[in-house]
Amino acid sequence: MSRIVYVNGEFLPEEDAKISIFDRGFLFADGVYEVSTVLQGKLVDNEAHLVRLQRSLNELSMTAPCSMKEIEEIQHELLKRNDIKAGSLYLQITRGSEGDRSFLFPKNAKPSLIMFTQARGAHSEETAEKGISVITQPDIRWQRRDIKTVGLLPASMAKQAAIDAGVDDAWMVEDGYVTEGSSNNAHIITKDGVLVTRPLSNKILHGITRKAVLALADEAGLKVEERLFTPQEASEAAEAFITSASTFVTPVVAIDGAPVGDGVPGKHAKRLRELYVEFAIKSLS
Amino acid sequence: MSRIVYVNGEFLPEEDAKISIFDRGFLFADGVYEVSTVLQGKLVDNEAHLVRLQRSLNELSMTAPCSMKEIEEIQHELLKRNDIKAGSLYLQITRGSEGDRSFLFPKNAKPSLIMFTQARGAHSEETAEKGISVITQPDIRWQRRDIKTVGLLPASMAKQAAIDAGVDDAWMVEDGYVTEGSSNNAHIITKDGVLVTRPLSNKILHGITRKAVLALADEAGLKVEERLFTPQEASEAAEAFITSASTFVTPVVAIDGAPVGDGVPGKHAKRLRELYVEFAIKSLS
Repeated sequence: MSRIVYVNGEFLPEEDAKISIFDRGFLFADGVYEVSTVLQGKLVDNEAHLVRLQRSLNELSMTAPCSMKEIEEIQHELLKRNDIKAGSLYLQITRGSEGDRSFLFPKNAKPSLIMFTQARGAHSEETAEKGISVITQPDIRWQRRDIKTVGLLPASMAKQAAIDAGVDDAWMVEDGYVTEGSSNNAHIITKDGVLVTRPLSNKILHGITRKAVLALADEAGLKVEERLFTPQEASEAAEAFITSASTFVTPVVAIDGAPVGDGVPGKHAKRLRELYVEFAIKSLS
Repeated sequence: MSRIVYVNGEFLPEEDAKISIFDRGFLFADGVYEVSTVLQGKLVDNEAHLVRLQRSLNELSMTAPCSMKEIEEIQHELLKRNDIKAGSLYLQITRGSEGDRSFLFPKNAKPSLIMFTQARGAHSEETAEKGISVITQPDIRWQRRDIKTVGLLPASMAKQAAIDAGVDDAWMVEDGYVTEGSSNNAHIITKDGVLVTRPLSNKILHGITRKAVLALADEAGLKVEERLFTPQEASEAAEAFITSASTFVTPVVAIDGAPVGDGVPGKHAKRLRELYVEFAIKSLS
């Protein structure tokens, strides 16, 4: 059975889910998105995702085609129609189209809203138990990484380069410092038990999971320092890990072929994941 | 009457021209494009556009869904079906989709090819006779601007900022030097008759019109220097101009509110435009 997806007011079989070739999402990457994880048939920390969605829209002077409340209703309807218990829910808003191509923002275009579910759970326990290996890659993305746009080609290239190199993901580096992973935030834990993470700015995505995990650090017995760190410092750290809506907290056990700490998932990352899963379940809506 | 556009093997009325929401052009900005100008019902310098298209594809490890020869045939069929004599022809190739969303390049996806004509001619004589005014804007784009991808949101934002500021376009500036215009290459002519333009690199698009115009500089009595220049140097230049497939050679008469030279289109830019139009007509195919 094919998925039911949502496209501009209609629930359709995925084969029929199409958008105009003139949509600015297709011609200009002029769109923003969010991915909420699904657990127990409900959404993890979804309100925070919708707050960030609204921020992305604001930063681009874009409007949603309906209220955030209505978006939430569509999200739940879609979960119901697909009877999905675990996985993720993707939503994307683009600036739409006035029927022709122009670099200028259209004045009268109706924004597009599409949504679909994905059954595969990237937040696999198995991956978390093994940890992942990353390579570093130059961060060639644009300078407004705080806006969650569909301009994901450079991130996709970095991730593909990692897979081609036989590892799981890439940590991106700019001016000598780690920015973030290809689709996740990057963190390290020093031998003194300090969680070091890059401060929020235009250089990284303002991760929803990042925020939740930082709020749990104290409970995990960790201090938090928001500052830049180098790949070298990451390699010498006790632990390293990524956070994202779909991977929760996942340990990084090797960077550029060199083991981090003991080369196996560390106790702090493990504890943070447990705490995050507790939080995620409490946050379901 | 609506346009006939081309979408993956079919010639369709523009209202029916749709693409899957799972296409990576829509979800990841994973696509490249070219715009060829149409004059006398034929394409200007089209072979050069197809060569650049192939380069963009190669840089992204992407393949075209058919040969460049076949693409050319579709271009001509589309011109014929729309009976278009002047305007432009847009074509876009994306990596397609395997039916779900993943940062990794799909292994078995068929690339998408779409094409449409636009009747409006941005290469208006009127604009060239008046010249355009630009503001400078920080260049926040990614670091592979030599690949002509659909990741155009930052360029679109720069152009929109220019219009909002009451001028025509933006010149983007990085590390103190002009990179290029929002959708065109930027050039100046010094008081000594030297055409100064930024050398080709990952920092700018390798303009087809830029190349043709540089080859005509000698005939216009100009030396060429390919080197970086600052907005300050541009403001103090004798002339400034942009080149692109759709604007040909168009003089820039003001930068950030200050006139360039006499504040009116200069003789060199005018001469380069005449020479380029001659070249363009000779290049028709």
